[in-house]
Amino acid sequence: MQTTISDLGERALIERITARLATPPWVVVGPGDDAAVVEPERGALDVFTTDVQVEGVHFDRRFVAPDAIGHRALAVNLSDLAAMGARPRAALLSLVLPDALDLDTIDQLMGGLLAVADAHRVAVVGGNISRSPGPLVVDVTAIGSVRRRRVLTRSGARAGDGVYVTGTIGDARVGLESLQRRADVNGHPAAVAARADTQVGPQEQRYLRPQPRVRAGLALAGHRAATACMDLSDGLADAVRQIAEASRVGIALDAAALPIADEVRRWHEGQRRDPVAAALEGGDDYELLFTSRPTNRGRLRGAQRALGTLPLTRIGIVTRERRLVVTSADGTRELPEGFRHFR
Amino acid sequence: MQTTISDLGERALIERITARLATPPWVVVGPGDDAAVVEPERGALDVFTTDVQVEGVHFDRRFVAPDAIGHRALAVNLSDLAAMGARPRAALLSLVLPDALDLDTIDQLMGGLLAVADAHRVAVVGGNISRSPGPLVVDVTAIGSVRRRRVLTRSGARAGDGVYVTGTIGDARVGLESLQRRADVNGHPAAVAARADTQVGPQEQRYLRPQPRVRAGLALAGHRAATACMDLSDGLADAVRQIAEASRVGIALDAAALPIADEVRRWHEGQRRDPVAAALEGGDDYELLFTSRPTNRGRLRGAQRALGTLPLTRIGIVTRERRLVVTSADGTRELPEGFRHFR
Repeated sequence: MQTTISDLGERALIERITARLATPPWVVVGPGDDAAVVEPERGALDVFTTDVQVEGVHFDRRFVAPDAIGHRALAVNLSDLAAMGARPRAALLSLVLPDALDLDTIDQLMGGLLAVADAHRVAVVGGNISRSPGPLVVDVTAIGSVRRRRVLTRSGARAGDGVYVTGTIGDARVGLESLQRRADVNGHPAAVAARADTQVGPQEQRYLRPQPRVRAGLALAGHRAATACMDLSDGLADAVRQIAEASRVGIALDAAALPIADEVRRWHEGQRRDPVAAALEGGDDYELLFTSRPTNRGRLRGAQRALGTLPLTRIGIVTRERRLVVTSADGTRELPEGFRHFR
Repeated sequence: MQTTISDLGERALIERITARLATPPWVVVGPGDDAAVVEPERGALDVFTTDVQVEGVHFDRRFVAPDAIGHRALAVNLSDLAAMGARPRAALLSLVLPDALDLDTIDQLMGGLLAVADAHRVAVVGGNISRSPGPLVVDVTAIGSVRRRRVLTRSGARAGDGVYVTGTIGDARVGLESLQRRADVNGHPAAVAARADTQVGPQEQRYLRPQPRVRAGLALAGHRAATACMDLSDGLADAVRQIAEASRVGIALDAAALPIADEVRRWHEGQRRDPVAAALEGGDDYELLFTSRPTNRGRLRGAQRALGTLPLTRIGIVTRERRLVVTSADGTRELPEGFRHFR
């Protein structure tokens, strides 16, 4: 029989987790006291965000392996910091755990989370563990820093700015659909989760282990190349709408310019769906959408150079007229509504 | 029929909540962007803590009214800041909500949380809303500030220090038992929750709406009167054990000195329990346990003057011998284990 967390007890579980945490010198009091005490970064502002992963809502344990749950829980928060132009520094972890959860699952979940933390030099400085009478819940607060003049918000877009996106869009939705299909065909949960770990395709990996665009956010902020920025957690259509509303502008997208991978196009065509509409609506990509002033092309080139191979693609323009439209060879249509959690 | 949160939709719910939030001038970017941006307090360190309230684990909706859920969710976090000697500044709120939850419940929950925030000048600077397929979960991260030389930790107790506690202990446990008994007798959930709101006794109120000892923590830190400090979230026995372990010392408590209200004693005697053991083990009090050096009596008097009527009671002494004991007229016995979440 496997050891469950209720066999181990709360205190022993906390000790097991904190033993894996490294504490950098700017952490004055780390995990294990009533609260963490941290030196703010000199000359910078603090940036705070919180985002949760709930079993049955944000992930399905049939095909999301424990390390991917931990990976996603931190990555989605670092994506929010990236969208502000902030450098990640620290995180707090709140775990709400079903009694029957086995210790291996927790160890792997922490492994996935700490791998992302290490990759981005984030210190887990505190947290909390509680029982759950229902789903597994992993709630993370991420803490970063940004200089005042570099803060990226959603509200700075102006008519005439170009609209850009990092990387490719729509991959994670295809990855999720592919994982769901495999889970429905293959019955046994553990087998599918294990397979997801070893035989994942590139789109599935985009869903399971998204790479937050921290370097891109820092490059855009550092070169002051963006007028507004937001991450694509809820899809491109949603992000376009949010930036337009916050900035009181319109946005016109060019469907032909959208960076959609060939595999993603083929997947949707196989489902007899419009690939552009599907890519606009798909969530979980964690790319950055940003706007940039035409007079700042030099700054944008500077940011692009800092980013190496990650593509920055121009996909549209900010308009004075407050409409949200997509133009293709067929003509101009309204932007789809995008993903909504409570509907 | 009542309006549920799934009728309203996520975005409208976020707007409804953020409309109630005030943003002080040191908040550079408040709720509604990817993350909050906040000026750190000049010359101070940041203090971070997170604690969660889970339905069915930390509260029973039969007798904890929605405003009390919100009150407790923030208060337990402010209590952790108080134990570090920190001044609360900001909070992030993560709500995981069952679809069928009605809007009145959320409004009242937010009312309770914001009343505590106002009382302690805490700005809710960000948060997140998610669906729950199970229980209602309210997860809060609280952010405070403290000067480096004023930080209170668990690890500073030294042999010879006096052991002190604020207020009275064991009240919340009696309050919880009383509320549970009324709920078991009175069947209908809503009626009991409503009654809990209007006819609560003082112990019940201590459980439902604990007052975090923020002023006491600030006074102890400001007068540098404490060598170690911790809050009593999991009971006095647990806190004594934690401070002793972190400080590598023993603690001897004087049972006769414990500040236990007469009503609390009578309740336990009515249950044929030892009132001292029951008060030592009871959780949810949110008083502060601290140690103070005998040579610093003047500082402790200074802190006491700053606190007015809140009693600071000496309940024991820190010992070189690493044992945890309680001495009464019957003799000396080992400290009970205290509350354990996963057992």
